[in-house]
Amino acid sequence: MTQEDRTRIQVSRRDFVKGAAAGATLLAGATAMSGCGSAAPIPASGMPDAWDGEADVVIVGFGGAGAAAALEAAEAGAEVLVLERTPTGGGSTAICGGIIYMGGGTPLQTALGFDDTRDNMYNYVLASAGDGADEELVGLFCDESLQLYDWVTGIGVQFNESFMEMKAAGDPTGDGLLYSGNEKQANYKAVADPAPRGHGAFADGYVGGHAIFAPLKAAVEASSAEVLYEALVSSLVVDADGRAVGVEAEIEGEKKYFKANKGVILCAGGYAANAEMVAQHCPECLRCAVNVGTPGDDGSGIRMGQGAGADVRMLSETAPFAFVYGSAECLCRSILVNGKGQRFIGEDNYGEWIGDMIVRDHNVAFLVLDDAVWSMVPEAAKESLTVVAQADSVGELAAGLGMAPALLESTVALYNEFAANGEDPLFKKNSAYVVPLETPPFYALFFGVEATAFFTNGGLRINAKSQVLDVNGEPVPGLYAAGRNAFGIPARHYVASGVSVAEVLTFGRIAGQTAAAEEVSA
Amino acid sequence: MTQEDRTRIQVSRRDFVKGAAAGATLLAGATAMSGCGSAAPIPASGMPDAWDGEADVVIVGFGGAGAAAALEAAEAGAEVLVLERTPTGGGSTAICGGIIYMGGGTPLQTALGFDDTRDNMYNYVLASAGDGADEELVGLFCDESLQLYDWVTGIGVQFNESFMEMKAAGDPTGDGLLYSGNEKQANYKAVADPAPRGHGAFADGYVGGHAIFAPLKAAVEASSAEVLYEALVSSLVVDADGRAVGVEAEIEGEKKYFKANKGVILCAGGYAANAEMVAQHCPECLRCAVNVGTPGDDGSGIRMGQGAGADVRMLSETAPFAFVYGSAECLCRSILVNGKGQRFIGEDNYGEWIGDMIVRDHNVAFLVLDDAVWSMVPEAAKESLTVVAQADSVGELAAGLGMAPALLESTVALYNEFAANGEDPLFKKNSAYVVPLETPPFYALFFGVEATAFFTNGGLRINAKSQVLDVNGEPVPGLYAAGRNAFGIPARHYVASGVSVAEVLTFGRIAGQTAAAEEVSA
Repeated sequence: MTQEDRTRIQVSRRDFVKGAAAGATLLAGATAMSGCGSAAPIPASGMPDAWDGEADVVIVGFGGAGAAAALEAAEAGAEVLVLERTPTGGGSTAICGGIIYMGGGTPLQTALGFDDTRDNMYNYVLASAGDGADEELVGLFCDESLQLYDWVTGIGVQFNESFMEMKAAGDPTGDGLLYSGNEKQANYKAVADPAPRGHGAFADGYVGGHAIFAPLKAAVEASSAEVLYEALVSSLVVDADGRAVGVEAEIEGEKKYFKANKGVILCAGGYAANAEMVAQHCPECLRCAVNVGTPGDDGSGIRMGQGAGADVRMLSETAPFAFVYGSAECLCRSILVNGKGQRFIGEDNYGEWIGDMIVRDHNVAFLVLDDAVWSMVPEAAKESLTVVAQADSVGELAAGLGMAPALLESTVALYNEFAANGEDPLFKKNSAYVVPLETPPFYALFFGVEATAFFTNGGLRINAKSQVLDVNGEPVPGLYAAGRNAFGIPARHYVASGVSVAEVLTFGRIAGQTAAAEEVSA
Repeated sequence: MTQEDRTRIQVSRRDFVKGAAAGATLLAGATAMSGCGSAAPIPASGMPDAWDGEADVVIVGFGGAGAAAALEAAEAGAEVLVLERTPTGGGSTAICGGIIYMGGGTPLQTALGFDDTRDNMYNYVLASAGDGADEELVGLFCDESLQLYDWVTGIGVQFNESFMEMKAAGDPTGDGLLYSGNEKQANYKAVADPAPRGHGAFADGYVGGHAIFAPLKAAVEASSAEVLYEALVSSLVVDADGRAVGVEAEIEGEKKYFKANKGVILCAGGYAANAEMVAQHCPECLRCAVNVGTPGDDGSGIRMGQGAGADVRMLSETAPFAFVYGSAECLCRSILVNGKGQRFIGEDNYGEWIGDMIVRDHNVAFLVLDDAVWSMVPEAAKESLTVVAQADSVGELAAGLGMAPALLESTVALYNEFAANGEDPLFKKNSAYVVPLETPPFYALFFGVEATAFFTNGGLRINAKSQVLDVNGEPVPGLYAAGRNAFGIPARHYVASGVSVAEVLTFGRIAGQTAAAEEVSA
């Protein structure tokens, strides 16, 4: 919290892959100043004399949300034009861990013997999304989940019929089903029966985002939708009534204008790669090592919406990650302490709950363990961990970390007292991980803010039709959003790995359906 | 944090005045749904055929910011029209605690023997505003501070030439100068020499907002500026180029339109009284007892700005208050623990630092003290405190709070071990307050989220000229903002009591000066 705390342990940002962020499956696009241009809309007075192209539905961004929107709009008979800034498309969906969060009794859940219901899923998602979760959007997300399973498998996404027993941040085993969130953590087990909902998409020998985006892309290319690559949308065009009627895009260095007869769908990602927006909305994340996503997550879609008068929702909310079990499940037997030697969360929590507290409140954090735990860590996993102190007693370990020895000694003594009975009344960590720490030497691993990775949860305010809303809660005519461009399922907390992909597909599909059904204006 | 924690202690919202919020000087306007109407701008196509009035500068809201803006714009020769929703004006300034935060060596600081410099003030304000603080705005705020002192005393604001020794949340003694923030707390003492900067405005026998707003109002009424009361501004009017050219206001049930030749200044307060906006941006504050401010803090000014394409900044940031020393300074000798029996902050911290952690992270909090401390609390102060448990041992006290006894016992034992030497290595509480807690009976006072009060820090993005900026960082033509309508000085943290008033006056004055200097459009 203090400057002193922040600087006590100087860790290079290049060390980020060692430590907490190891569990964040894919990291790309170092935080950088936005390279995007304008975002304020082109007003009526600046409308182009002639359009360079037109379609019923113009989609900004060809990641998971854009692809789902394109497929649905085309399926509904609309002429669809997708404008994508990169040469290949894919967005964060293509580089993610490949997990899609679905439940309510999917065929895969059932085949592997797990019971789940829509309401059970709803109870978990709503509780875990935390403060600010939207009951209507969460409800819709759960209503649509079984249908989403049919849809993704229908376009060719494949899941192995096997369950991953191990607790891991991603899906290193290739199994088709896993617990990917906080379902089994005591606080959430109390509100919903745990069920694994992470569906790991498998192709070419491993689970990953390519196994989701490749079939999506193939389906779009086989549809009537047109995709223009290397077309960076820079502005919305709005008419005198405030309706989004098209976009300006930069193609081969020239500004081109595309008319949208029915609507524009913003699917351009979050803003974690835009350091200026991060400074303005969630400045604590400037201390994170990296953002999870692509360099295209520069917030341009959000800013274009804002420029057109759209409202935002929990725009400051982020999902910072620090997985205790990212390198090895046995590390859940450690205790995670802040710079004052206090525990602050159950170590078996999903990485976002932990990262959120480190980034916003503690900055300094160490994973403290004894040799009994350390000797359980596979050698390969040790290479991804940064030992910052090692000592023959807890007090000496504390001194090595710059703490008054009694602080950490008190924490360990209390923990060991309860652990002798496998209990953790402080944070209700799963008993399987609650074992006294008493075998020297003791180790402290770096888990500070500089080892966290984040993306953004906040965005444009949408309704259950994926329509973008203005400050009165009324739709901005002709404007839709989905994916990390919009506030959707995660609120104070990210729900579980695979929620973003499930959300971008769900609300992308809805946006495509709604926009295609719009009456064409005169 | 968990639902269980939240519900463990059921405290009626009506109990809020008992406990933590007792130090929040004035509370008004229970959180309620917004009564304000439209906020999206009236676009070019809906421009009125005829205006009902016009001025060079139209100011929305007649609180401290609006009054300061009006005085400066009128002084510069502009025709000024102020539109105010209430019959009297005043906003939060008129009902605040009456403290203005000024420093850098004000005549009062000097007369009372305190050294301060602009840079020393800057170092404290920047550090205490925390993550997201804007160096340019903070620098300007400090640059202008001595001039602000001259200006407010020039219009008749009076300060007694006396210093308040006691640590209190407000200024109950009538003294003219006091420490009103976290200046003496260890983390901030390390970055800036402590200096008292709270200037308590005195009139009619007591310190309070009336002693600030009454002379402001008299000055405005004596100026050329016109004030229309009971005129609720409902929308901006923007032309086809996106310029703010006037406002729509409801007066006696009719919509009236006022043209602004030079500019519109939004001075309509924060959004703490608008439950829908709170839910959308800072949902954790729905658990607070009350908002600090007036029912007019419904965010209408922020939303009108957003509707016109303005950007926002840290819109989710709030200032929740829980003063340990609100009822009696000796309570700093207590320890503040969360629902797990852990301390989480130095008890001598300014109430916002404490409230922020309670509201966002802990929900459950108790002040734990022994009979030695309790017997120091004045009887009258005891009436404002809620004792939720009393016991002859710390373990029994914990059991009475629903905690495992060892949790609280461990915390108290560690605290007492250090306190024997007057040390608090955990949170560096001032040694004067660090005394072992060992005299039974022990008491627990309610300090949970339901006893906190809050207002909002986030708002429209402005520059150092008080111009409202769009998503490209460019001024929205003709639009200015000041006060809680805009993101200004507080960022992650509120800086000290009196900062809001100083800020609304500083940036209100700048807005008035900038708008008045605008070239009149054709």
